[in-house]
Amino acid sequence: MRLRDLGERELIRAIRKDFAKPGKGLILGIGDDAAVIEGGKRRLILTTDVLIEGSHFLRALQPAFWLGRKSLNVNLSDIAAMGGTPRYVLLGLGLPQTVDTRWVSDFFSGFKSAATESGALLIGGDLSQAAEVFISVTAIGEGRAIIRRNGGRPGDLIFASGFLGDAAGGLRLLRRGFRLGRDKKADHLLKAFLDPVPQVRLGRRLASRGLASSMIDSSDGLSVDLLHLCEESGLGAELELDRLPISPQLRNFEKDPSALALHGGEDYQLVFTVAPGKYQAALALRRHFMITPIGRMTKARRLCIIDRRGKKKPLPIKGYEHFIKQRKESGKG
Amino acid sequence: MRLRDLGERELIRAIRKDFAKPGKGLILGIGDDAAVIEGGKRRLILTTDVLIEGSHFLRALQPAFWLGRKSLNVNLSDIAAMGGTPRYVLLGLGLPQTVDTRWVSDFFSGFKSAATESGALLIGGDLSQAAEVFISVTAIGEGRAIIRRNGGRPGDLIFASGFLGDAAGGLRLLRRGFRLGRDKKADHLLKAFLDPVPQVRLGRRLASRGLASSMIDSSDGLSVDLLHLCEESGLGAELELDRLPISPQLRNFEKDPSALALHGGEDYQLVFTVAPGKYQAALALRRHFMITPIGRMTKARRLCIIDRRGKKKPLPIKGYEHFIKQRKESGKG
Repeated sequence: MRLRDLGERELIRAIRKDFAKPGKGLILGIGDDAAVIEGGKRRLILTTDVLIEGSHFLRALQPAFWLGRKSLNVNLSDIAAMGGTPRYVLLGLGLPQTVDTRWVSDFFSGFKSAATESGALLIGGDLSQAAEVFISVTAIGEGRAIIRRNGGRPGDLIFASGFLGDAAGGLRLLRRGFRLGRDKKADHLLKAFLDPVPQVRLGRRLASRGLASSMIDSSDGLSVDLLHLCEESGLGAELELDRLPISPQLRNFEKDPSALALHGGEDYQLVFTVAPGKYQAALALRRHFMITPIGRMTKARRLCIIDRRGKKKPLPIKGYEHFIKQRKESGKG
Repeated sequence: MRLRDLGERELIRAIRKDFAKPGKGLILGIGDDAAVIEGGKRRLILTTDVLIEGSHFLRALQPAFWLGRKSLNVNLSDIAAMGGTPRYVLLGLGLPQTVDTRWVSDFFSGFKSAATESGALLIGGDLSQAAEVFISVTAIGEGRAIIRRNGGRPGDLIFASGFLGDAAGGLRLLRRGFRLGRDKKADHLLKAFLDPVPQVRLGRRLASRGLASSMIDSSDGLSVDLLHLCEESGLGAELELDRLPISPQLRNFEKDPSALALHGGEDYQLVFTVAPGKYQAALALRRHFMITPIGRMTKARRLCIIDRRGKKKPLPIKGYEHFIKQRKESGKG
């Protein structure tokens, strides 16, 4: 059997099952945005991400400086999704011999600028020759109150930070030939894709105030990431189409911006749930952060979208088949 | 300028210089076998390694099970070289869609067997499609007394654990068509290359007893690894050719086993220095570990080998040019 017939999700499930076991000092293993281990007074949050040319980025479309920033920031987004503060980072890099050293120095300039902004220190790495560029980042954060994916309760409100769909819109513009700095209207979307900002401050605030019952970052698209929250909490969710935070710029360039907001991916915003009793306190954060209530968690284990006419429809997403299947097997929902 | 014209060493030096800065909680950053951060009562040791098909391993020659073991064990060897105990591991994996799932499950079986032996827990990872197989492992260890590369003093004795050159000999046999399990004489060398054993217990013992003034693992070959120890300690070294621990099996297959012992690489043995006053205590470890005194650290910053007739000759190694150059610039030596 070839890997393409098995699929990444199945493989990860098998690995997780095979390797999941408790360990001394281990607070949280495989399956959340990051792992958590004991580290003295605080907890240490560890996460690793791999970016591969062709699959995760396109050297022709993504300038090395922005790619350097994004390589680090997507990892820091995982730490943000646990409510942690980035502290250290290790970098594994595979480079073809034909890569220009200018590309490499631009990449490192970008990586360093993101590290400086976040306060994360590069403490180690490995560099190697490879057929294609690949980037492997391991980030280590610290936190006291950790927000997991599995804490949602029925009736909890679902919030999203920032705008959704902008990164996917930006990628489409890049593919259509748009480039940063030439068109102000396009720049907002291009920037969202090329230089996503990890929501570290918001994540930490939610953790320190105990406002979020569960949290994830929106890397795969709202629908898939919400599915992860639902799976881990054993719940379903209803989204309100009209409430999705869609930027005017995305509306300007896209006929169906909701589709990108729901399924686009790479926004690296936070998606989190808030108990009804903490709803007002969460809303008060809007003085400092852009957050939007977009739906609620439900006992019924299905993902639905409520359209503009108030009609409830199932949300079609890749990977949902398994969710449905699991629900039937377990007899719940 | 293309990367091939700059070279990995130069690039790492530039990165190290650019990123080296102290941080709260950071005990040791880029430049040693691993980084060290504060982690409560103990210190946490972090290291990352990248293995790429073609550069670091050959799928045709290295069965997936052994490759899985080696992927983890070469990282644990870095932790051993700090005197630490492996605790956690994160795995980034890039796989072509054409890889057989049997290969993947064999790889994970191997990875898991090495994890179980060492007590390290897989706590996270990332899986991705790639043009070639690549493996990125980040290991986290714990330790109290950390042995760095830079603690050597003039007159310290240099020790090596195990045999040197066996892994390089094994790789040569693999390339000549030898395979594990067919020829007992060859198996010892093949095993040394396919399934190196990280010297965790020895590293920890040296650390807890305070016996080693500096330490590194022999991944690039004794000559290059010793050069790293010398560079970091600001010293030189003399090796005695006759004392190099060369296995009977290597002598059996190789006409010039010393060359492989000196420059072969991938042995993942420990190379460490011992102050003269602790020499006897170190030798006493031979009841439990195979360790051999092979030379001494010198104030003169050059690497020499003393041949069988007692004649001292410079040790020619790749990368030595820089060492010489640096020595002249600084006016020392």
